[in-house]
Amino acid sequence: MSLRFAVLGAGRIGQVHARAISSVAGAELIAIAEPFEAAAKAAQEKYGCEIRTIDEVANSADIDAVVICTPTDTHANLIELFAKAGKAVFCEKPVDLSVERVKQALATVEAEKATLMVGFNRRFDPDFMAVKAAIDNGTIGEVEMVTITSRDPGAPPAEYIKVSGGIFRDMTIHDFDMARWLLGEEVETVVAQASNLVDPAIGALGDYDSVNVILRTASGKQAVITNSRRATYGYDQRIEVLGSKGMVSAKNMAEANIQVATADGFSEPPLLNFFMTRYTAAYANEIASFVKAVAEGTATPTTGLDGLKALELADAALKSAQTGQAVKL
Amino acid sequence: MSLRFAVLGAGRIGQVHARAISSVAGAELIAIAEPFEAAAKAAQEKYGCEIRTIDEVANSADIDAVVICTPTDTHANLIELFAKAGKAVFCEKPVDLSVERVKQALATVEAEKATLMVGFNRRFDPDFMAVKAAIDNGTIGEVEMVTITSRDPGAPPAEYIKVSGGIFRDMTIHDFDMARWLLGEEVETVVAQASNLVDPAIGALGDYDSVNVILRTASGKQAVITNSRRATYGYDQRIEVLGSKGMVSAKNMAEANIQVATADGFSEPPLLNFFMTRYTAAYANEIASFVKAVAEGTATPTTGLDGLKALELADAALKSAQTGQAVKL
Amino acid sequence: MSLRFAVLGAGRIGQVHARAISSVAGAELIAIAEPFEAAAKAAQEKYGCEIRTIDEVANSADIDAVVICTPTDTHANLIELFAKAGKAVFCEKPVDLSVERVKQALATVEAEKATLMVGFNRRFDPDFMAVKAAIDNGTIGEVEMVTITSRDPGAPPAEYIKVSGGIFRDMTIHDFDMARWLLGEEVETVVAQASNLVDPAIGALGDYDSVNVILRTASGKQAVITNSRRATYGYDQRIEVLGSKGMVSAKNMAEANIQVATADGFSEPPLLNFFMTRYTAAYANEIASFVKAVAEGTATPTTGLDGLKALELADAALKSAQTGQAVKL
Amino acid sequence: MSLRFAVLGAGRIGQVHARAISSVAGAELIAIAEPFEAAAKAAQEKYGCEIRTIDEVANSADIDAVVICTPTDTHANLIELFAKAGKAVFCEKPVDLSVERVKQALATVEAEKATLMVGFNRRFDPDFMAVKAAIDNGTIGEVEMVTITSRDPGAPPAEYIKVSGGIFRDMTIHDFDMARWLLGEEVETVVAQASNLVDPAIGALGDYDSVNVILRTASGKQAVITNSRRATYGYDQRIEVLGSKGMVSAKNMAEANIQVATADGFSEPPLLNFFMTRYTAAYANEIASFVKAVAEGTATPTTGLDGLKALELADAALKSAQTGQAVKL
Repeated sequence: MSLRFAVLGAGRIGQVHARAISSVAGAELIAIAEPFEAAAKAAQEKYGCEIRTIDEVANSADIDAVVICTPTDTHANLIELFAKAGKAVFCEKPVDLSVERVKQALATVEAEKATLMVGFNRRFDPDFMAVKAAIDNGTIGEVEMVTITSRDPGAPPAEYIKVSGGIFRDMTIHDFDMARWLLGEEVETVVAQASNLVDPAIGALGDYDSVNVILRTASGKQAVITNSRRATYGYDQRIEVLGSKGMVSAKNMAEANIQVATADGFSEPPLLNFFMTRYTAAYANEIASFVKAVAEGTATPTTGLDGLKALELADAALKSAQTGQAVKL
Repeated sequence: MSLRFAVLGAGRIGQVHARAISSVAGAELIAIAEPFEAAAKAAQEKYGCEIRTIDEVANSADIDAVVICTPTDTHANLIELFAKAGKAVFCEKPVDLSVERVKQALATVEAEKATLMVGFNRRFDPDFMAVKAAIDNGTIGEVEMVTITSRDPGAPPAEYIKVSGGIFRDMTIHDFDMARWLLGEEVETVVAQASNLVDPAIGALGDYDSVNVILRTASGKQAVITNSRRATYGYDQRIEVLGSKGMVSAKNMAEANIQVATADGFSEPPLLNFFMTRYTAAYANEIASFVKAVAEGTATPTTGLDGLKALELADAALKSAQTGQAVKL
Repeated sequence: MSLRFAVLGAGRIGQVHARAISSVAGAELIAIAEPFEAAAKAAQEKYGCEIRTIDEVANSADIDAVVICTPTDTHANLIELFAKAGKAVFCEKPVDLSVERVKQALATVEAEKATLMVGFNRRFDPDFMAVKAAIDNGTIGEVEMVTITSRDPGAPPAEYIKVSGGIFRDMTIHDFDMARWLLGEEVETVVAQASNLVDPAIGALGDYDSVNVILRTASGKQAVITNSRRATYGYDQRIEVLGSKGMVSAKNMAEANIQVATADGFSEPPLLNFFMTRYTAAYANEIASFVKAVAEGTATPTTGLDGLKALELADAALKSAQTGQAVKL
Repeated sequence: MSLRFAVLGAGRIGQVHARAISSVAGAELIAIAEPFEAAAKAAQEKYGCEIRTIDEVANSADIDAVVICTPTDTHANLIELFAKAGKAVFCEKPVDLSVERVKQALATVEAEKATLMVGFNRRFDPDFMAVKAAIDNGTIGEVEMVTITSRDPGAPPAEYIKVSGGIFRDMTIHDFDMARWLLGEEVETVVAQASNLVDPAIGALGDYDSVNVILRTASGKQAVITNSRRATYGYDQRIEVLGSKGMVSAKNMAEANIQVATADGFSEPPLLNFFMTRYTAAYANEIASFVKAVAEGTATPTTGLDGLKALELADAALKSAQTGQAVKL
């Protein structure tokens, strides 16, 4: 029998998940909860699902699982509500911007013996999965150095920045999770430098747009993360892992795989410049892995703890950038 | 309102089209016709469509269009049947292995003022479309030389070869269509050389597995096609167009976009090695363009005439390979 | 002791060889023969060598070897003169534009038991040598298909075309030699198509600028050669060999190995666009291999016979292009 | 008239420079100073130069310039000696391992109004020069982020490590210079993390083999340097610069530019794995630029101050790695 879903929030990411649920075997989209009527009706029409309120979803016997795509400041409350309601919960990152609040929510999940998966979509990208498989197969020997380059096509509007929690909690958080996943060890020390180079409006809000972070584990393995809010050439998403026997890396994805040669030289199209296009396959794989874990009663591939750890790294990086000191976890 | 489809034949390519129809906006899969009950039921379950006989489909008021995916020797008959039944027809290549029979079928289509699109999926591949767009935009100036490299991962079984019509009509036919499309002029002269290098069983059947063809238009533009039935590294599908101002080319698609570096050097995964995986997007685009043309009453992007022209080039190439003489069309 | 050289002709290619001789261990440039005084003096100053007439060189006891870089119509005479004079001879391709005259010259070389190496510089390019090594190591199994793409940056002036012997004897001749080398078997059948697309002045002289050739050996192996007199993006020199177990190919050489990414996409510099820059290493290796063969008394890696065979293929291709018939050798 | 050189030290790097001087127009190698007789004689034979002692060189009227390739602990003394002797001085990096000693030596150079160029060969690599040109041309707008990946093929022996001054002063020093050159602004803040992952013998000597450094200028521009003493796939030397309008990067150099495709996928040869092979062109350009500057009486492209600044960054990085604190310059 299919896992019956409700998606909470019909914004951009809510639609990504609604589409993923529709395309994944063993999953069925029953309902959507969305306060804006137009958005709700559009989703209803597109996916043939019902419109329900959040409370209705919590009380629906025909809903097995929810995907939380509402604003960040509602995540922890919803996790607790649906954990208590006996639904399997998939929540978009971050769980909350406060480590304390995250811990509370995870405690509730644990007390209820509920299932919580936190959305770190990049772990489900086919190329990044192939990188991880090469590491796990021993192809590059013992991991020593991870390099993550992650640059957005362009800076978001000030409205977004204001509620984002800052670049480390909003953008780098994905890279912190990738680094933990690829290093295979917990991070012990964080150093960071942060600048405002792209948009003065970001600086005016006390946030940064250009950051570099070094992470270090107890055994001395290191990861470097390079972030910028602006890459004119598209959404730049690269990972590279050096090990004792070699290196494995994933390439970027272009708008088209063609090459033009003229008297000016050789040119290729820019990168896919939208996270939903770049990570289409990742989002589908992510939901499929959630469905599989719930169906089989196994652990989800990412958990609330992953969400917590990534947030702690974000807080540490911010502190290091502000104080110039290495921060120990 | 959606265009209501029946797919005739639930084999490999029939399933490709059934899936494409299910995923394309404005299209709906109503029925499948397939003599093997197990295959029919599998399709029914997967796509939620009915099972009907071909005659039932021809008489169904709730079917607007058919996709012909049955064995090649039934194509011409079915085209005529459904043209007369007033259905829009999409037929997999080739229309028939006999130029005469193709001409008859096209005459019927014309007499009935029916719609016939012949399936040359590669024209709908996003990368090849980007190549064509670069040509049409004038990026490379006047087209002078087209180079098409097309190699299958491995030779098909003798059973398949026997009924295939030979490599030129079965495999090169796709490249003939690509060449016509990219040259933008009709071919006037064909020279070819053909060998049996890959599998003696193919030679024993009087067929070839390794061929090179040069096509030439009246104005002197040329296209070279290189085919092999075996490429150990995957399904090799490249096009390159040289013009007066430059060159444009499309790259192959690998299983994953990663790179491993060790003491042995740098390595990347083999190419996608199955036409259905390699051309997933192309098949979806192809059906979408058929739906759009029928819905809007415009010409289909490929027609019965394209099927005929490609077949004539195949016949000419075979004759040239056998006689050593350039064949004029 | 060093092999003592005279270079005959101080034009562009003569200077290439003079420089190569100066840089190669075991070789010494003693004299240059050049009728234009300014060119002769420039070479004298640059390489610290003497100026002598051709007859003086032939009678010089302190000259062991000559490099013939004079106009093509003098090559055969000079080969005979220096073979009789007991000098080791390195002659730039072609030996002559007439197969009969080549045969005469080779007969003289044989009668004198002289050493003659014909300059097919591409065999000495490090990347092409690596391709050949991969073939010889069995990496790709049995060779089946060779693809050679060879395009000049731009068409030469009409003056040059007039005395060039035509594109097949002047330009494709290099590719015929490469094809023979890579196929590892003699060619039996030649088909070709030739057009005039780049420059009408070339057509007015009865020559072509855009040609495709298919070569075929007795066992059915094939090679395709694609030539154009114009590639706006630089000197395009690619080889690709398909075998039963895989493929090996060599890449082009760019002006610089950098990449620029902007909102327009990714771009890289054009190719090196001059044969002397593109093949610097090849020319040095070529002379070094001549020096080594003479010093050790072993066979030169390319011979007069290679020059003859390539010319015969050129004549066959021209005939096929003119008649539309496959030409047997 | 040519600039007349003596090379001090006939070890590996001394030979690199001796060969470069021999190949550069306007330079002449007169003498070599080398205490080991066999090495001195080998150089004498190879380059046709004389053997002199260091004192003889200092007193030689026929020597205009010296290239200091002796052990690091002699550099400062020799710079002072030859500055006073009125010779133009080219000194291999580093000037000294002590910032104080470097400052003394530079003071002497200044007092003597002598010419001193410090060897940072990478600035003269053709690809890196093309990257710098792209920056200077405004192609990528304002520089924001520099990423330098620099990995040796393998760790040097403990004997070398002992006298090297540690990874930051021995290996990263090249990258510090590159970062300064590419950032176009002086560095204000340095943070670093350093590990011992490659060879325990390195750790036993109190040195590191795996380090990451973040540099930051007053305006907030940042550079990241990633070093490892081991890259099994060859000498990994990459630079990437992100600017407000785009990115420019230089690629690595492989042993051969070929690709092999088999059932295992696509493979390319490892990188050139020796600094002398990788930077052949850079060393020749470097000496040529020194010759040009001395001949024209202009400033050398790299100076003693560049050597000092790079060393100060090395000291700062070491301190940051040891203390976990950002170090201000």
